[in-house]
Amino acid sequence: MSTHEAPSSADTLSYSQAGVNYDLIDPLKISAQRAAAATGAHLGAHGFTEVLASRGESAYVVDVGPFYIASIVECLGTKTLVADEMRELTGKSYYDSIAQDTIAMAVNDLITVGATPLVVQAYWAAGGSDWFADKQRAQSLVEGWKRACDTCQVAWGGGETPALAGIVEAGRIDLAASCTGLINPKERLSVGDKLGAGDAIVLLASSGIHANGLSLARKLVERLPQGYLTEITPGLTYGDALLAPTTLYSPVTEALFKAGILPHYCANITGHGWRKLLRHQAQFTYRIHSVPPVTPVLRFMQEQAKQDDREAYSTLNMGAGFAIFVKAEDAARTVEVAKACGIDAMIAGQLEEGPKQLLIEPLNIRFSDDDLQLR
Amino acid sequence: MSTHEAPSSADTLSYSQAGVNYDLIDPLKISAQRAAAATGAHLGAHGFTEVLASRGESAYVVDVGPFYIASIVECLGTKTLVADEMRELTGKSYYDSIAQDTIAMAVNDLITVGATPLVVQAYWAAGGSDWFADKQRAQSLVEGWKRACDTCQVAWGGGETPALAGIVEAGRIDLAASCTGLINPKERLSVGDKLGAGDAIVLLASSGIHANGLSLARKLVERLPQGYLTEITPGLTYGDALLAPTTLYSPVTEALFKAGILPHYCANITGHGWRKLLRHQAQFTYRIHSVPPVTPVLRFMQEQAKQDDREAYSTLNMGAGFAIFVKAEDAARTVEVAKACGIDAMIAGQLEEGPKQLLIEPLNIRFSDDDLQLR
Repeated sequence: MSTHEAPSSADTLSYSQAGVNYDLIDPLKISAQRAAAATGAHLGAHGFTEVLASRGESAYVVDVGPFYIASIVECLGTKTLVADEMRELTGKSYYDSIAQDTIAMAVNDLITVGATPLVVQAYWAAGGSDWFADKQRAQSLVEGWKRACDTCQVAWGGGETPALAGIVEAGRIDLAASCTGLINPKERLSVGDKLGAGDAIVLLASSGIHANGLSLARKLVERLPQGYLTEITPGLTYGDALLAPTTLYSPVTEALFKAGILPHYCANITGHGWRKLLRHQAQFTYRIHSVPPVTPVLRFMQEQAKQDDREAYSTLNMGAGFAIFVKAEDAARTVEVAKACGIDAMIAGQLEEGPKQLLIEPLNIRFSDDDLQLR
Repeated sequence: MSTHEAPSSADTLSYSQAGVNYDLIDPLKISAQRAAAATGAHLGAHGFTEVLASRGESAYVVDVGPFYIASIVECLGTKTLVADEMRELTGKSYYDSIAQDTIAMAVNDLITVGATPLVVQAYWAAGGSDWFADKQRAQSLVEGWKRACDTCQVAWGGGETPALAGIVEAGRIDLAASCTGLINPKERLSVGDKLGAGDAIVLLASSGIHANGLSLARKLVERLPQGYLTEITPGLTYGDALLAPTTLYSPVTEALFKAGILPHYCANITGHGWRKLLRHQAQFTYRIHSVPPVTPVLRFMQEQAKQDDREAYSTLNMGAGFAIFVKAEDAARTVEVAKACGIDAMIAGQLEEGPKQLLIEPLNIRFSDDDLQLR
């Protein structure tokens, strides 16, 4: 079960202040994880086995013999609330971007285990049938969904479009995506057992906030006299910048395989910001010597929320949307492959023997294992 | 994309009166289906192909060589609103039953194509973190989810527990499940091409309303002076009867395979009631000579809503939760296998050459293809 938490400090605006209390979710999460773990043995009845190391990873993996199957369901979160507000202000729909965000939440997690995404299912639960009566918006959602499937070369298998008056708020929609993929050949499995000292950390650029940190982003709007229409750079409003669609990273992981590069591990940098680099339970020191440029909207949020770098990097992606851990000799080519896919990338650091910690040297930040309780 | 519709007539309470307007959803559905169909070709880039006949079926199927993979995402719907009301009245949680309902929505659809369900992912989107603070209810949801996984011998792979204030209503939860399975061996694929005149229709008993028709069920409560506490049979309240968990049918389909029986087709009888028997596009006359006993809660709803049999059978499952179409010589054993799994079953009729129609002879009902526009 994936959740997101963020630390709070005295004078800043943190996640819990923005309305998400993870203390209340966590006991359930632990209970659910235990119950779920106990069901893995059922696969034996069908002649298969779970990949135990995938428990706690971003996607669940089953060994079915000739290859592994990975599956996942992921929620978009509250980014639609920004789209809905911006639509009232600008008349644009934004749901093509929102569709890409939703698929990215599933696809970018699924590929961390080495899977090729094959099928996406759409979960569009509206507050009432009338949500779908707005043809511009509905069509925009369909078109964006298809375009994201095209980018990732996945088949859109189908889905659900329930109208849930009384559960989903009137005029709102709860968006999620499930994704199924194959790890084929099986050597592509990357659940962290190949991680080793000396491995390089390659960071892929983000397009903006992606779909994590939106509760904070919405809270900050209350402090801005011009709200979402505040310009963060000339000609670019805060609202438009927030709604840049999440980068889809599966073209990169597929291209890496074709280039003969097998990542040792991957981390989708989402709700825990850079603490996600510590995701795997192995004991290494992750030393960062170079940080990518910070996307303007994230820098703006950091300033408005009066967060120091440590808080900002612990919550937001700060310009790095996805991390790929590869053999040192593959690092430069990994960067080239990503750039050839149109996604900026850089060698940001390396793994070393040592206590489990993330050292972001240019910013004098240290995160330890205590800062990330994901499992 | 799956939706549900129901016909309306003058003096009765129908779905559209109960707040679901499918006319508004359908144009989007058609647009989404077209866009989704155009993405199937992407599988070729990975060396695979879609099973075209699964488009429009209850689960999407991909041919990956040694076997087929089936996947699906399904929403529970609004049954939680009944559980929430009943909890206030009785103090019981009911979320163990609700968990089973949610898994049943996915599993009972997935098995129609011949798949063995392998992995379920949980989608629990709450209106706020505080939903999870109610430990009795949260624990009940976890326990019910696990028990349903145990019954179906599926692995609970993980899931999402987002808190979506502003999208999901405060105090409510939007529940869904995704499911991935294998059709293995490939001869188990049942997308309707094996259907033939002479095939028997075996109906498996439902436990009650399952998870379709709840909008109508909730609307009827307004007419009952004692509401959900109205006794429909001595000692059984309307609310408790509605909350009987949906029967899980995968133990039957798995047992059938072990018994050497390969169904030609299956239909999960959900939102369209018995019209779902006409689901496949092939031209046959489906002649029903015997109908199963009607579950008391469904008979009660029919009476309260003043529906004639035609309307009731077009909306509710009326005692039959799942239909299995098998070779005539396999019919009696199919019934035996289901009963050995603890699920009542009967040979209800057969397929004949003729115009596409469903004839429920004991009740003098005829449904034609025009009565079911599912694709």
